[in-house]
Amino acid sequence: MTFHSFRRAHPNVAILGATGAVGVELIRCLEARDFPLSRLKLLASPRSAGRTLSFRGEALTVDAVDAASFDDVDLALFSAGASQSREWAPRAVAAGAVVVDNSSAFRMDPATPLVVPEVNPETIGAHRGVIANPNCVAIIAVVPIHPLQQAFGLTRIRMATYQAASGAGAAAMEELRAGTAAYLAGEAFTPQVLKHPYAFNLFSHDSAVDEESGYNGEELKVVAETQRLLGRPNLPVGITSVRVPVLRAHTIALTLKFPEPVSPEAAREALSGAPGVRIVDDRAGNHFPMPSESQGQGDVLAGRFRRDLADPTGRSICLMVSGDQLLKGAALNAVQIAEQLFCPQQLRSSAPATEPVA
Amino acid sequence: MTFHSFRRAHPNVAILGATGAVGVELIRCLEARDFPLSRLKLLASPRSAGRTLSFRGEALTVDAVDAASFDDVDLALFSAGASQSREWAPRAVAAGAVVVDNSSAFRMDPATPLVVPEVNPETIGAHRGVIANPNCVAIIAVVPIHPLQQAFGLTRIRMATYQAASGAGAAAMEELRAGTAAYLAGEAFTPQVLKHPYAFNLFSHDSAVDEESGYNGEELKVVAETQRLLGRPNLPVGITSVRVPVLRAHTIALTLKFPEPVSPEAAREALSGAPGVRIVDDRAGNHFPMPSESQGQGDVLAGRFRRDLADPTGRSICLMVSGDQLLKGAALNAVQIAEQLFCPQQLRSSAPATEPVA
Repeated sequence: MTFHSFRRAHPNVAILGATGAVGVELIRCLEARDFPLSRLKLLASPRSAGRTLSFRGEALTVDAVDAASFDDVDLALFSAGASQSREWAPRAVAAGAVVVDNSSAFRMDPATPLVVPEVNPETIGAHRGVIANPNCVAIIAVVPIHPLQQAFGLTRIRMATYQAASGAGAAAMEELRAGTAAYLAGEAFTPQVLKHPYAFNLFSHDSAVDEESGYNGEELKVVAETQRLLGRPNLPVGITSVRVPVLRAHTIALTLKFPEPVSPEAAREALSGAPGVRIVDDRAGNHFPMPSESQGQGDVLAGRFRRDLADPTGRSICLMVSGDQLLKGAALNAVQIAEQLFCPQQLRSSAPATEPVA
Repeated sequence: MTFHSFRRAHPNVAILGATGAVGVELIRCLEARDFPLSRLKLLASPRSAGRTLSFRGEALTVDAVDAASFDDVDLALFSAGASQSREWAPRAVAAGAVVVDNSSAFRMDPATPLVVPEVNPETIGAHRGVIANPNCVAIIAVVPIHPLQQAFGLTRIRMATYQAASGAGAAAMEELRAGTAAYLAGEAFTPQVLKHPYAFNLFSHDSAVDEESGYNGEELKVVAETQRLLGRPNLPVGITSVRVPVLRAHTIALTLKFPEPVSPEAAREALSGAPGVRIVDDRAGNHFPMPSESQGQGDVLAGRFRRDLADPTGRSICLMVSGDQLLKGAALNAVQIAEQLFCPQQLRSSAPATEPVA
């Protein structure tokens, strides 16, 4: 990796999509982690321009993104959706910025590194201006899976997800709150953001379903990105993605198969001290990873290590993991990528980054 | 099976645990299905005695259960917990009643039939006075799994559950409502029934965790009962049981492995028209089984039939199922067992039994 080409030690930073659920967390992460920036520029669509957001005690006005937005910007953090990324990333790169993109636009482009710093930091250096921040479920899954793969190898992954509203944006979080309040008050409520009622309900992930395979877009992204992040393009990965009435943390029931038998104790040991992982595994207290404790945390919580009863060979382990969708699943991972680029000597754990707001 | 031994064509019926979440649904099911009873007696612990509940337009007073409670009772529906069942079932049987027991007390007793009428009705006849109503997840799983096993054989089951509050009783349902209302109001709330916060949260099932295996009691029950119901004591069954903030319907992400490749279309076809199953499988509309539609329904909803991406042999199928925990998962199944005993000629589908109250 080369770092000498940046124009200044403390970069000028822009956030595109600053008013979204992830944008707000990007600002908080830069602040909480004391990211060494010279200037922060907040950008959004014309619809959201004019709002002010606080950064380090200063009120910053959100500007509408335009052709001159990226002049003098060294680092651009994008979280405005894939079409915005496709439109603005080439312009930001042409203006000299490195883009860390939270959308799916470039994630499967072989020329664009797809990075989780705890998993494949060595891939960052090959970037040509854009680095892709992975899908939230893929990030939260691979942080604990990678050390297990390193320790034991890996032949198969199955996951059932319990995904929060935040993955569908701030409006979906608000719809969950408002729909639930209406339900409790006995009032009618018509969902506007999601297709199905959300109050005390759950449903198969809201991304479009492929007619041929029956898999939805979220599931196909998670499979492909998990394979890419683990460097295993042909690894069999099975998945069911479900949206549950939780605000901002994703939980995943994982079943991992290894080439040889692995004990639950060995799996737990392999994850103890792994970067970005915190073990929550108290059988006597029935205390395992859950959203109320993973939200607001930078670490992915991992626990419930046990043999998979469906695999009598002893080669499969079940566990549960939970991570904040907006932090490690999105904003924090993007800022950690930026830290690798601009201040690798400051490489830090992902431990508590900010307080939950949900 | 013999039916001639009953003392009267229209039995006297007693419900033990009449004031609980399942007890109330037992009354509704008897009413909605026009069960041909002569007299209904409502029983509960002394703590709940004296309350009145409506049945067929009549207000019935709940009596405290005592030594004389089962005199002249032909059918006793028990839903008051395992210790109450162990205490009162022998007395009810001695008094001449047949007991359909919703607790776990006798489910794994080889002398006690464990029955889901769509799956193993032929086992009822061997009862010695007590018939066990299975665990709610086991019932909701086997109703759709059984026809698939009949059609294709079956070599493995994996499930990740999304379980409702109702499985922990009426007080847990109320705790979910009250805790959520407090959360939305920004007020503190201390859970009394469940160990962890429930508002917009989820957690590993609240039953005690076996220190040795790491599996909780619920999971071990579901595995053992699923094996017994399917007549496959050695079938590998893997499971993760999770309590989600849903009021009264359980959803299960199922992965089933067969001896030979099975297409999603063939699996769907095998379940079309299967008793107790309703297909909800609209890829274009992203409309699949979910609690808001399974609650209040007697049928188990099944859909999202697709190949398991983790099994390249084509032998594994994924699907989602959802069923009302209080109806097919408990009260309705018990009443269907009673119908098999007392009015087998009236054998009916499990289709809509009552309106949801949650």
